[in-house]
Amino acid sequence: MKVGIIGAGQLGRMLALAGYQLGIHSTFLDPDAASSGGQVGPVVVGALDDPASLRELAEQVDVVTFDIENVSVEVLADAAAAAAIWPPPHALAVTQDRLSEKQLFEAIGIPTTSYVPVADVADLARCGTTLGWPIVLKARTLGYDGRGQRIVRTPDDLEPAWRSLGGVPAIAEGWVDFDCELSLIAARGSNGSTAFYPLAENVHSDGILFSTTAPYLDAALQRMAEGYLDAILDQFGYRGVLTVEFFLAGGQLIANELAPRVHNSGHWTIEGAETSQFENHLRAVLGLPLGSTAPTGHAYMINLLGSIPGRERLLSIHGLHLHDYGKAPRPQRKVGHGTIVAADRSALLERAAALSAAVSQL
Amino acid sequence: MKVGIIGAGQLGRMLALAGYQLGIHSTFLDPDAASSGGQVGPVVVGALDDPASLRELAEQVDVVTFDIENVSVEVLADAAAAAAIWPPPHALAVTQDRLSEKQLFEAIGIPTTSYVPVADVADLARCGTTLGWPIVLKARTLGYDGRGQRIVRTPDDLEPAWRSLGGVPAIAEGWVDFDCELSLIAARGSNGSTAFYPLAENVHSDGILFSTTAPYLDAALQRMAEGYLDAILDQFGYRGVLTVEFFLAGGQLIANELAPRVHNSGHWTIEGAETSQFENHLRAVLGLPLGSTAPTGHAYMINLLGSIPGRERLLSIHGLHLHDYGKAPRPQRKVGHGTIVAADRSALLERAAALSAAVSQL
Repeated sequence: MKVGIIGAGQLGRMLALAGYQLGIHSTFLDPDAASSGGQVGPVVVGALDDPASLRELAEQVDVVTFDIENVSVEVLADAAAAAAIWPPPHALAVTQDRLSEKQLFEAIGIPTTSYVPVADVADLARCGTTLGWPIVLKARTLGYDGRGQRIVRTPDDLEPAWRSLGGVPAIAEGWVDFDCELSLIAARGSNGSTAFYPLAENVHSDGILFSTTAPYLDAALQRMAEGYLDAILDQFGYRGVLTVEFFLAGGQLIANELAPRVHNSGHWTIEGAETSQFENHLRAVLGLPLGSTAPTGHAYMINLLGSIPGRERLLSIHGLHLHDYGKAPRPQRKVGHGTIVAADRSALLERAAALSAAVSQL
Repeated sequence: MKVGIIGAGQLGRMLALAGYQLGIHSTFLDPDAASSGGQVGPVVVGALDDPASLRELAEQVDVVTFDIENVSVEVLADAAAAAAIWPPPHALAVTQDRLSEKQLFEAIGIPTTSYVPVADVADLARCGTTLGWPIVLKARTLGYDGRGQRIVRTPDDLEPAWRSLGGVPAIAEGWVDFDCELSLIAARGSNGSTAFYPLAENVHSDGILFSTTAPYLDAALQRMAEGYLDAILDQFGYRGVLTVEFFLAGGQLIANELAPRVHNSGHWTIEGAETSQFENHLRAVLGLPLGSTAPTGHAYMINLLGSIPGRERLLSIHGLHLHDYGKAPRPQRKVGHGTIVAADRSALLERAAALSAAVSQL
């Protein structure tokens, strides 16, 4: 079986590696043959939105999927003649625009942050009165890892902040004083079967995921979150892995973002769940049965940013599973991650604290 | 870091896949570019004993290792000028000849099966009186997975059996009425540090490994086996993973075979141990710290022989980790394996029985 993956970043790389174990071969579309994914599999070298390149990819494989959200839905529609495309491009279209994402949450009845669409300066005037302070200003498109976002604390700062985003269409969101950030990852298969990983708790730093701890055990929240994702999956006639990030505030889940793909907050599933999110995404898009999403213990995942610090010392840390994406060092770039799995939560938290300290000192 | 792997079978493939996670890149030497390993990494296409091809491989990498034992030690010596070679070729030389392997066990004081070297018909005459019946006749070189072996039950059958092996130099071994077969896998690093996996229990069928269950928990046997392997590792100044297969008979370990490489009876470590045998072999040959060999639960590994039976049904088995080596079907060929991991042994054995039955019916 052959899968085409648009984008050869670390997510594509981990998809391809999960596939090899099952005898599934992946080919990437990426402008860079030496990209993280391109180091482990063949690449059709081309722009992600180049119709000819995407067609070339689609003609080589059974199904096309993507490891990145900034893919042209129009170009995907053209390639659909040559191969099935999963997750569905219309799900991708919704998540490419923060406004349509919010509208989806509202339409389905999923609590989300209060917001004001910002198209011009006049819209900015309404923000403070509607949302209070501080406000989080986000470009509607092309944002990730905190890019395209500004936290605005006073009325005077609002217009300059919007200008600094390029004056592009944006949404202003009210501040959520959350207790913690959680994410839920679901997989939906070809026959509508679904499987949910346990909730995971995420810590961000400078807008970038710093660490994930899973499972976050709260049966009521788990049920609530699964209900929300079920509704989204059904709405889209979805196939593949889908992630929703929530704020937990006052016992309520407030949807923050939706990603129609495998997700950084699910990297712990490689060692910490019976079947990884990567394997389940491949199973789902290929129409194979989904694998068990049961956790195998308690897992802690920490991102390695900028460069892999002290490989020998990292590998000396008992039970640390190192993942090196093969990416050149660059400040704040996700170049790898490490995961530890322990039998119980208290042992995990003790080791996680030591790991976090060790990584920051390397 | 770059590793050269002589032989691109499933062992090489799993080494390369373990390496990718750590950012280690493998290149194979194999006559077949489309071999199991060649499907996941670049191949120098050439005979395994072709000096020019091996030199070409060695010049591209930091260290050369092998996934197969039938490698010419002379050719390795030539390549050693271009790259380090681990495990040490002299360990390979010993294991290529069943007689020198026996002599090693004896020299170190490791109990092994009684045997008679067979060079000619005259030697055959001594076998029955020395060893009793039945006798296991084994060609001294080039045997694996039961090939090059004959079980001989009567004096009249002995010479025909030896002739059917080609009349090559052989050893005749006394029959061991064993309680079970166990194997121990060790890794030895660059600084002489060692790590031992727990003993694993193996079941063979027609001379081919059928299944492995691990850990086999017996602290006294574990200590005894570790002592034996420690002595072998020291003797060789070893670096890499090494496996010894034992018979357990009357509470004693009797060494049967030695393999200077990762081993089929260690495939369970991919999901069932903190660090797989493949990752630890790479760590060892590259001079990196060894990873924890602690089991993460109780594991059962079953080989898939001939062809991958009913992929969809296999993937429907709860918690089954399928490994498809990408090999063309052929009777009795190892084309893949499946592993399940459970928290306790009784749960494992129940699921293992169901899995074994399901695989045989697919």
